[in-house]
Amino acid sequence: MKPTHIEHIGIAVASLDEAIPYYEKVLGLECYAIEEVKDQKVKTAFFKVGQTKIELLESTDPEGPIGKFVEKNGGGMHHIAFAVEDVQAALNDAQAAGCQLIDKTPRGGAEGLRIGFLHPKSTFRVLTELCGTK
Amino acid sequence: MKPTHIEHIGIAVASLDEAIPYYEKVLGLECYAIEEVKDQKVKTAFFKVGQTKIELLESTDPEGPIGKFVEKNGGGMHHIAFAVEDVQAALNDAQAAGCQLIDKTPRGGAEGLRIGFLHPKSTFRVLTELCGTK
Repeated sequence: MKPTHIEHIGIAVASLDEAIPYYEKVLGLECYAIEEVKDQKVKTAFFKVGQTKIELLESTDPEGPIGKFVEKNGGGMHHIAFAVEDVQAALNDAQAAGCQLIDKTPRGGAEGLRIGFLHPKSTFRVLTELCGTK
Repeated sequence: MKPTHIEHIGIAVASLDEAIPYYEKVLGLECYAIEEVKDQKVKTAFFKVGQTKIELLESTDPEGPIGKFVEKNGGGMHHIAFAVEDVQAALNDAQAAGCQLIDKTPRGGAEGLRIGFLHPKSTFRVLTELCGTK
């Protein structure tokens, strides 16, 4: 696998309405999109800084993964996504190198991208996403 | 403040020796430097992906901030650092926008950079560093 850059950093928040003004007014970033990803039970807000997006995640369901994370931790950094050309090939590479996968095949994520997750058991407790156009 | 990119993502690990092979063999990144930052009681390992560095942090003291974090969580994403031109000006901007600071003036960080931290109370639980050459 040869990731080209950090595609995004996923950050769980209790409320997009409360967190967006901090990213805009304190950090000086611009929220350019808000999108609901029903499959993951989240509403997302996107900011761009250099090559990387900040993806704020608000749960739409207390039983969803972000809902549980926020209930436990109050929010915070949730996952890191590496940009790769071919997500299936990268998942295969990771598995061949001994890494446990959450997704054996890519699924659809925000912004129309293909995504797949490595298992935190194999990634030293960092939930790690691979993200690309194919 | 106008950050240009994500300068690095700080990830706490129990052992650099155990974590470095994962970043190299599974993610295909190259560890290009290992450095001790005595002030922060850590040994760091650096990888580059696009504009951003992955900074792995191993504690050199169980009572240091990374030692306590690893004891509590076992490791994981610890902080995010935004690249800014002038760290003092960015800290002043953040404070003026109502943000609580950990550092009112920049101090020295890894790789000879000037750094300053915003307080997680004001950043929706994301420990946030500003990082630059002045």
